[in-house]
Amino acid sequence: MPHELDVPNLHLPRIVIVGGGFGGIELAKKLRNLPVQVVMIDQNNYHTFQPLLYQVATAGLEPDSIAFPLRKIFKQQKNFYFRMAKAEQVLPNDNLLLTNIGKLHYDYLVLATGSTSNYFGMNDIATNSLPMKSLPEALNLRSMILQCFENALLTHNLTERESHTTFVIVGGGPTGVEMAGAMGELKKHVLPNDYPELDFRRMRIHLIESGDRLLGNMSDESSQKTLEFLERLDVHVWLDTFVTAYDGNVLQTKGGKTINAKTMIWSAGVKGQIIEGLAPEAIGKGSRILVDTTNKVIGHANIYAIGDVAAMIADDTPRGHPMVAPVAIQQGQLLGENIAHILQKKETNPFKYRDKGSMATVGRNRAVVEVGKMKTQGFIAWFLWMTVHLMTLVGFRNKVVTLINWIWNYFNYDRGIRLIVRPYKNPNIPNSPHSRQETN
Amino acid sequence: MPHELDVPNLHLPRIVIVGGGFGGIELAKKLRNLPVQVVMIDQNNYHTFQPLLYQVATAGLEPDSIAFPLRKIFKQQKNFYFRMAKAEQVLPNDNLLLTNIGKLHYDYLVLATGSTSNYFGMNDIATNSLPMKSLPEALNLRSMILQCFENALLTHNLTERESHTTFVIVGGGPTGVEMAGAMGELKKHVLPNDYPELDFRRMRIHLIESGDRLLGNMSDESSQKTLEFLERLDVHVWLDTFVTAYDGNVLQTKGGKTINAKTMIWSAGVKGQIIEGLAPEAIGKGSRILVDTTNKVIGHANIYAIGDVAAMIADDTPRGHPMVAPVAIQQGQLLGENIAHILQKKETNPFKYRDKGSMATVGRNRAVVEVGKMKTQGFIAWFLWMTVHLMTLVGFRNKVVTLINWIWNYFNYDRGIRLIVRPYKNPNIPNSPHSRQETN
Repeated sequence: MPHELDVPNLHLPRIVIVGGGFGGIELAKKLRNLPVQVVMIDQNNYHTFQPLLYQVATAGLEPDSIAFPLRKIFKQQKNFYFRMAKAEQVLPNDNLLLTNIGKLHYDYLVLATGSTSNYFGMNDIATNSLPMKSLPEALNLRSMILQCFENALLTHNLTERESHTTFVIVGGGPTGVEMAGAMGELKKHVLPNDYPELDFRRMRIHLIESGDRLLGNMSDESSQKTLEFLERLDVHVWLDTFVTAYDGNVLQTKGGKTINAKTMIWSAGVKGQIIEGLAPEAIGKGSRILVDTTNKVIGHANIYAIGDVAAMIADDTPRGHPMVAPVAIQQGQLLGENIAHILQKKETNPFKYRDKGSMATVGRNRAVVEVGKMKTQGFIAWFLWMTVHLMTLVGFRNKVVTLINWIWNYFNYDRGIRLIVRPYKNPNIPNSPHSRQETN
Repeated sequence: MPHELDVPNLHLPRIVIVGGGFGGIELAKKLRNLPVQVVMIDQNNYHTFQPLLYQVATAGLEPDSIAFPLRKIFKQQKNFYFRMAKAEQVLPNDNLLLTNIGKLHYDYLVLATGSTSNYFGMNDIATNSLPMKSLPEALNLRSMILQCFENALLTHNLTERESHTTFVIVGGGPTGVEMAGAMGELKKHVLPNDYPELDFRRMRIHLIESGDRLLGNMSDESSQKTLEFLERLDVHVWLDTFVTAYDGNVLQTKGGKTINAKTMIWSAGVKGQIIEGLAPEAIGKGSRILVDTTNKVIGHANIYAIGDVAAMIADDTPRGHPMVAPVAIQQGQLLGENIAHILQKKETNPFKYRDKGSMATVGRNRAVVEVGKMKTQGFIAWFLWMTVHLMTLVGFRNKVVTLINWIWNYFNYDRGIRLIVRPYKNPNIPNSPHSRQETN
């Protein structure tokens, strides 16, 4: 048995929150004035603003301006304790959480662990594609994209060169669409200045979607506009196309199409990031944890799940709520209130999602936005997109630095942060001179 | 024999510059309008502003605001070619430079490779201390400092806990002094908010210098003021103290003193970063390359060295010029002019160093500055220090972001970028939960 994790025993109900994403943060804030001890566990000491990871990957933003230290968020909150740790298993009968730095007793456990890439069992794709779910992953992608162009310069073989400068993005949801748009901007405005020796007509950006339209959660009109925007940025969009294999060099589809590309970015699926030890009946489709209307996990008395990892199945949400920040935020807030009610032996309230709408941006001046019945595309949508993202970003310093970068990038048609700070070691180019991994 | 590196043959004199530091950049710029081909080789695709690395290490600045893409600097310069590569050996008889991506013919070779940490043969110190000469090294140090506090929380053993929160900086030159001052600020204003569970009287910062005063290249008055400034920041300064051993846990000095510390930062010595293949008589003390008054390497007809790696020995510079940016900049500029003269068969001019003075900052509102006979300490010096560093920083975006961070940090007594983006794997704490190295 691992030793006890050293957290002061306050002789108060201890609420352990696993994960410092949108949901975990909102919940911890709501518990500020309650007679409880809040212990947050996260593998990282910072909160990541995931919606802008693609801008880090495409050299538009510094990694440090979309991350915020968790301890800093809660420095005024007296009942808050943080431990940087990886949660490994829950022992529900003993009310114990096992982590890589010791075990921890809880009175209430809240799983706010978010989601991770889902490769649907395709191991070659898991190994050879690049995901974009964390800051180090986005930085690896930034390095990889730039290394590809450095590598392209080292060969006269045009087929080889083209495979270095071909980028395939799989998945036509918001992440895939925004990434494809950002790559289109790099091709059109930025990289040709850096690499005058390369013929940029030979740089290709493919966006592959298995469904019959992009942004499946939005209206047909938005899908259509998004397609138009992407095509103007020279992105090749393939609908109804299902990727079956990728060995790091050649991508294959169900229909028999092949694409030579050294870089494949996977944004075609996510699944819940679950933890061992929960009741088997609590795990639903896509590894999401099944919860009741108060986010209590099915089959458990004092374990809750919120945000991406939770699936609240109901008539109006047969597959659970969308895995987006507003759901996590609202569930975190409600759970905080409900815990107060439980402690005061009052009734709890069921969760009701207030849909804030959907949006995605596709390069400069262009975005699609839907709020309720309102739909808009183009410049106004793009401006709305920026405003919402800037407002949601945690930390005033981050907002200012991000705004400056956006203004700078906009007026200079630039992405200033084209740095290979730690080269990405591509397992498929083992001897590549630009694939050394610095560990010092 | 390695294959030929693929750089277009322009049938013009080819000048190969190894290193994109201050000297290499100035030289390449000066060659802009000459009928030559300029090929720059650097291991990184960016220029690093080394004087501010310590602010990255202490969470005051983003890494991306003190780095600048080399290709971006020269995007308008038609005769400029860049290859990201590591120079490995020179074959002077064949006018060939061997790199990790192939060999390259040169007509003129300029070594602007800078300096690297000098451990004077003490292998245990080389293995166990952290250097701060590159961006990844500064980021490792930032992670390590923050991990130490996370680790300190995991033990009740006070001796163990103190060794996590004891930081030893060896070397009382500008780098060591500025790092110690920044650590003092972290202790005084920033970290106690993050770690209310720790007793910060037990955080110790030691600055160890083998000479009898700090900042040996400045006046006694400046040394004395610097010592006062550091003591006000609770830094323990040890003069006349020579470090003899460090195993990652215990540091030992010649006088028999020992300090328990998990972190030791080495800034006590640098040496030239030389390359194999030069004439033996060309290598001087501290691995610097001996050059004549035009920076031509002794014993070679068409190889030059500029900046930190070059030692121009003369009566007024018996040990060469100081290893600072202004020397590199001025040598790069003069060599550019001299190469023009050589091509036009005119006479070359000897190097004359215009000393721009010295400065170092020690926490908020305090610095020491000497320019010619002018000496000033305190607030005005601090303001001068900031202005000079901001002006020297490459890139307008970088200047703006740095200025905003400085203003933010100043008025909020904060260092906002306390992120452990890639945890540092400390070889001395192999099983530490906070020492995993993420490679994905």
